[in-house]
Amino acid sequence: MFKEIFENVRESAPLIHNITNYVTVNDVANMLIACGGAPIMADESKEVCEITSICTGLNINIGTLNERTIDSMLIAGNKANELGHPVVLDPVGVGASSLRTETAIKLIEEIQFDAIRGNISEIKTLALGSGRTKGVDADAADEINEGNMDSVIEMAKSFSKNTKAIITITGKVDIVTDGERVFKISNGHEKMSHVSGTGCQLSAVSCAFICANRDRKLESVAAAVSAMGLAGEIAYKRLGELDGNLSYRNYIIDAMYNLTPLALEEGAKYEII
Amino acid sequence: MFKEIFENVRESAPLIHNITNYVTVNDVANMLIACGGAPIMADESKEVCEITSICTGLNINIGTLNERTIDSMLIAGNKANELGHPVVLDPVGVGASSLRTETAIKLIEEIQFDAIRGNISEIKTLALGSGRTKGVDADAADEINEGNMDSVIEMAKSFSKNTKAIITITGKVDIVTDGERVFKISNGHEKMSHVSGTGCQLSAVSCAFICANRDRKLESVAAAVSAMGLAGEIAYKRLGELDGNLSYRNYIIDAMYNLTPLALEEGAKYEII
Amino acid sequence: MFKEIFENVRESAPLIHNITNYVTVNDVANMLIACGGAPIMADESKEVCEITSICTGLNINIGTLNERTIDSMLIAGNKANELGHPVVLDPVGVGASSLRTETAIKLIEEIQFDAIRGNISEIKTLALGSGRTKGVDADAADEINEGNMDSVIEMAKSFSKNTKAIITITGKVDIVTDGERVFKISNGHEKMSHVSGTGCQLSAVSCAFICANRDRKLESVAAAVSAMGLAGEIAYKRLGELDGNLSYRNYIIDAMYNLTPLALEEGAKYEII
Repeated sequence: MFKEIFENVRESAPLIHNITNYVTVNDVANMLIACGGAPIMADESKEVCEITSICTGLNINIGTLNERTIDSMLIAGNKANELGHPVVLDPVGVGASSLRTETAIKLIEEIQFDAIRGNISEIKTLALGSGRTKGVDADAADEINEGNMDSVIEMAKSFSKNTKAIITITGKVDIVTDGERVFKISNGHEKMSHVSGTGCQLSAVSCAFICANRDRKLESVAAAVSAMGLAGEIAYKRLGELDGNLSYRNYIIDAMYNLTPLALEEGAKYEII
Repeated sequence: MFKEIFENVRESAPLIHNITNYVTVNDVANMLIACGGAPIMADESKEVCEITSICTGLNINIGTLNERTIDSMLIAGNKANELGHPVVLDPVGVGASSLRTETAIKLIEEIQFDAIRGNISEIKTLALGSGRTKGVDADAADEINEGNMDSVIEMAKSFSKNTKAIITITGKVDIVTDGERVFKISNGHEKMSHVSGTGCQLSAVSCAFICANRDRKLESVAAAVSAMGLAGEIAYKRLGELDGNLSYRNYIIDAMYNLTPLALEEGAKYEII
Repeated sequence: MFKEIFENVRESAPLIHNITNYVTVNDVANMLIACGGAPIMADESKEVCEITSICTGLNINIGTLNERTIDSMLIAGNKANELGHPVVLDPVGVGASSLRTETAIKLIEEIQFDAIRGNISEIKTLALGSGRTKGVDADAADEINEGNMDSVIEMAKSFSKNTKAIITITGKVDIVTDGERVFKISNGHEKMSHVSGTGCQLSAVSCAFICANRDRKLESVAAAVSAMGLAGEIAYKRLGELDGNLSYRNYIIDAMYNLTPLALEEGAKYEII
């Protein structure tokens, strides 16, 4: 199933409008190309309607939000909804400031997102109002483990039902749910957390995958999560003893570029609950 | 001829003021260093006059323009004209929104550019008002081929005469013209389009090349285009089976860093029409 | 001594709030992770108080300052002072424009910095009002050599006493002083100046080192400077004949990631005056 989903991305090459942070924006652009999509970045309120209109999907990331770009996110999101374009939200660091929390809540209230992706702290903040956050990383106190897995899944399902969006929680195990079914995905490598921006990249890739598979949103996001994790595994194996987190970043994007739909199908590790 | 032009860049190390997008800005900085120039980025209207004044040339790129930076582009461009500094325009994504189109037109009306570089869709938009655009990439419908090469060259020459700027259209074949003479350059590799920002980098490099060779603008831009393409060829040969678009990006900048003026002279592939 | 200082960074993993330029921001993020810290970037005035509050330290870099972010720097800096968080200033390109100079002076007047790091031209501009600047690089006329070493050290000590901040001047030889004692550090490689952003990275790393060693500020900054230089040396040895400045950038961050506290202790090259 993931094979066909990935083939569709490579064949349709969806153009994704990104309103995203300036920290990882270059990685997002190159990762979108690597997975088979195409990027455009634009955050000026006067042009975001038009830019969104010529694109296939919209990826909103609040990593370095400011007053000007928050307006642009709302305008673009509403336009994308009007046009029926897939919209993804990455609520980077939500919980770390009132502005981030209020902005994410406002975006979710005003815009119908197709998918929302965050770490456990970010999703807990949005779903329960109680996530801790260590800046842009999940707090250790929020870690998903065997003991709390069931309650985390219930939270994700409930949040998905409330938002009508596919919810992805990334961590050691990744959870993707549409409120009914749940993909528990175990691709990836823990060292990916030593690379700035793998989450941002995944959100953009998820948007491209949905755009190319409009009738299979849950499976598309699951395939994107699996592809990103698999790229992380392949890249990890490539690391030499002198390589560190920067080379790992490069190799992950390289691995996505070289990943075939068949290799994704064969390398995906998940169970459906 | 390209040998001497490139030597002049390496010897004079022109400092280039860049008002550019935040997507590819780091690549632009490192590519400018790689070719022998030096970068400074500054986009606040209150300082761009002074920054432009201490530099040798100005590179304006509208990739992630906003109202604040558009003002800065106009202020810096006018100052550079007043001082007689070379100014280059990269009209990224022009045609994708009214704001981009209007801004590019306004910039061209108010500022005398020494060179303008874009893909075929961007240049068609500016020259004819009819380019299509797939975001920041050229639309397939605009592709240059044997059948339309003559008309594309005529358009470029005409646009050059109208703007009094060296016009560069990059694609499978690159065209550089001053309105009279035309360089048709066939360096480069098609996979360069899988790397975000090679166009932005080339525009900055073109600016550095003109700065170091003020009396030979056409040849300078042609040499810059050829050097960038040659770096892409050398980097392509270096790619291993695990390398993808991110390593290719790195290798292209590395290749420019190691490119000698003599190797440029010998590797340049062009005809003058 | 450096061994224990570095171990403390790796063990405490200080979260650093960065208000920094968009040119080298991704490198700063990954370098902070590489040295054992964690990054968050936020520059909107409405959230910087909260972001600084959840962090351990604050790193202010004026590389692409604008009116909006200058406000945020002042707000965050004052908050960090109130909370007793370490604050570092990187006055990128000070002297290149009145705005940069006035902003840096205002920041130093209003905020008590724990450390200030710049090249010789930047520090001369702030300490004497007479530095030259070649944009963001030191001007050749300001170069430190045997002939002027003593006077440069005196200037640094005096500036340190006036600002009550650890002063770092980076160049062929790096000087770090608290106004009384001076570390003259000779780690590093001259080719590091061909990589955009090594200075920005060092300032962020210095902040992380101080955060983990609050009672030994001078030694912490010296250890950070030495670690950065050593990473540059190790990375230089790794360069193959096809590698250029972009691969060197990657290898420097990789080298910091793999650097052990013991290797820092053994590889540090300095004298204390």
